[in-house]
Amino acid sequence: MKITCTKSELMNGINIALRAVPSKSVMPILESFLIAAKDDITITSNDNDMGIRTGIEGVVLESGMIAVEARLFSDIIRKLPENELTIESNASYKIRISCEGLEFHLNGNNPDEFPELPETGTTRKVTMSEFTLKEMIRQTIFSIAVNDSNALMKGELFSIKGDNLKVVSLDSHRISIRNEKLALSYDNSDVIVPGKTLNEISRILSGNSEDMVELEFDKRFIKFSFNKTLVISRLIEGEFFDVERMISSDYASEVRVNRNDFMNNIDRAITLTREGDKKPVVLEIRDSFINMDITSSLGSMSGRIDANKTGDDIVIGFNPKFLMDALRVIDDEEVAMYFVNSNAPCFIRNDAGEYVYIILPVNINR
Amino acid sequence: MKITCTKSELMNGINIALRAVPSKSVMPILESFLIAAKDDITITSNDNDMGIRTGIEGVVLESGMIAVEARLFSDIIRKLPENELTIESNASYKIRISCEGLEFHLNGNNPDEFPELPETGTTRKVTMSEFTLKEMIRQTIFSIAVNDSNALMKGELFSIKGDNLKVVSLDSHRISIRNEKLALSYDNSDVIVPGKTLNEISRILSGNSEDMVELEFDKRFIKFSFNKTLVISRLIEGEFFDVERMISSDYASEVRVNRNDFMNNIDRAITLTREGDKKPVVLEIRDSFINMDITSSLGSMSGRIDANKTGDDIVIGFNPKFLMDALRVIDDEEVAMYFVNSNAPCFIRNDAGEYVYIILPVNINR
Repeated sequence: MKITCTKSELMNGINIALRAVPSKSVMPILESFLIAAKDDITITSNDNDMGIRTGIEGVVLESGMIAVEARLFSDIIRKLPENELTIESNASYKIRISCEGLEFHLNGNNPDEFPELPETGTTRKVTMSEFTLKEMIRQTIFSIAVNDSNALMKGELFSIKGDNLKVVSLDSHRISIRNEKLALSYDNSDVIVPGKTLNEISRILSGNSEDMVELEFDKRFIKFSFNKTLVISRLIEGEFFDVERMISSDYASEVRVNRNDFMNNIDRAITLTREGDKKPVVLEIRDSFINMDITSSLGSMSGRIDANKTGDDIVIGFNPKFLMDALRVIDDEEVAMYFVNSNAPCFIRNDAGEYVYIILPVNINR
Repeated sequence: MKITCTKSELMNGINIALRAVPSKSVMPILESFLIAAKDDITITSNDNDMGIRTGIEGVVLESGMIAVEARLFSDIIRKLPENELTIESNASYKIRISCEGLEFHLNGNNPDEFPELPETGTTRKVTMSEFTLKEMIRQTIFSIAVNDSNALMKGELFSIKGDNLKVVSLDSHRISIRNEKLALSYDNSDVIVPGKTLNEISRILSGNSEDMVELEFDKRFIKFSFNKTLVISRLIEGEFFDVERMISSDYASEVRVNRNDFMNNIDRAITLTREGDKKPVVLEIRDSFINMDITSSLGSMSGRIDANKTGDDIVIGFNPKFLMDALRVIDDEEVAMYFVNSNAPCFIRNDAGEYVYIILPVNINR
């Protein structure tokens, strides 16, 4: 194999492909990139749960493939001059990298040992903008239960009904739901995508609203194609929780507050909590204000914010972190919260139903 | 005690004083700040090796002192609105912090339990700019031997002779020396300042050349006074190494190179080394160029840079990290290196003698 390309073009590809390189694997070949040159040049990585293939603009002087230790290769390329570089490998997997009179020699690995990315079978395709996908991940990923024994909670439901995409994540204390209209209508389908995949994807996505990403999936795999990059990931198999069942439009009180004011006080309350400490922030909701109080082993805080409530007065306690996680990802200046009583979940949602955050209260034994 | 001040003024003081708060101490009171209000307001921290006292602009409404858990206090203040705040404590060490209708209550500690900062005895004083002190630390601190059993190597020599300040640090592979002319002349004196103190000091110093810092020391302590801040630290007791003995002006070759070109190639060579890996970069120095080669278990690199050599050709090996550490802190565009032979230390120094970096070579057994 022999290729030339610019350092910056190669570095872009490396930074994308690095996201699927495991830091340590029982299969050492997975700590490599597969560089392949034929009609085009690609870098592939694969941690067995997720694989990435990304294209590099360059010139193929000689077709071929080589596997190279990904982090070492990345370190070396990163420090090369900003210029054209040449990479060649021979039949005994020796690699030569040259750039501006500099020369590196590395031992590569047999490219045939590198596991191929899985092929999807009969698939369905959905298209959306990179912006939409990246935002929907950002606004739901925080309520995934990373350490839960229930595998379903480690993923997010992507549910398509006609032209509506619904993304749902949940743990045992809360549910996050985002709905977005797609440009086209599709057959109904539900897939559960691992949170790890979504985290990595959202780091690669440009987030531009003009750039499109195509999602393609069968029963076992999902493929994301955008720009010159393909990400393929296993799906989590199973039936997702029926969250519709938990959503109700009944409420006893509706409260509107300035998101920043509310969030700032919640953030202050968090300073008095410690990991594993279940001390709630208590909201005393009146017609025109909310009193916010927290008392923990570290001290106590009290504050008040303006509010606009219709319906019953209510006193209710929450883990302040759960409120904070939801408030942080909402872009609206004003948020609306709906309460049934002190023991029922609170709903934070907008009128258009684009987002619904459901948070279980903490018993405050008053 | 009762004081008012702005959030930003208090935060500045907190950020300075935090530098002497141990993350965990067998004496829990050391994890506190001492806040004292009398004619002025000060925050004090003390980890028993180093203490900091810094002044806060504000209004004393009631004199007094209180000890408060430093990190919790810092977390709370950091999240308050940008406005005036009030801090008060009562006889049972309860603390009340209020700001814009917000109120925090914390349990403080008996301020009498907080260990007083040591007093220096008969002292000597030296004045220099914050810029000079910060630069001299930056340009020498890297060659301190943090983990060496020899306590002297964990500090830097500050040696004053007339109007010359010399700062020296060394480990078993290299010596870093910086000389600077002071505005005034002083009696000769040598003190060894712990590297930890210097690291923390250089984070607090503004580095402005118009701001002055006063160094005051006796046999056991050194005090740094600048702006509204006082830092006092134990000295390392003992006789520092006689580095003058190791400095020679004899050399067989003098080489001048562009610092950036040289440093970039050294940095590339480092990609092929791993922690604990003693593989040297080999410099083959000719009249108009230096060939640079490194071969390790990871691969090999070769490069060449322009050079301007007078004297003998020489082939010599170095731990590339040691070269990098010195080159990184030199501000000159061109550096001059002096060699005796392949087994003798290399000197990197400028003509004015402001800096001398002495680095032992690695045996390359050619």
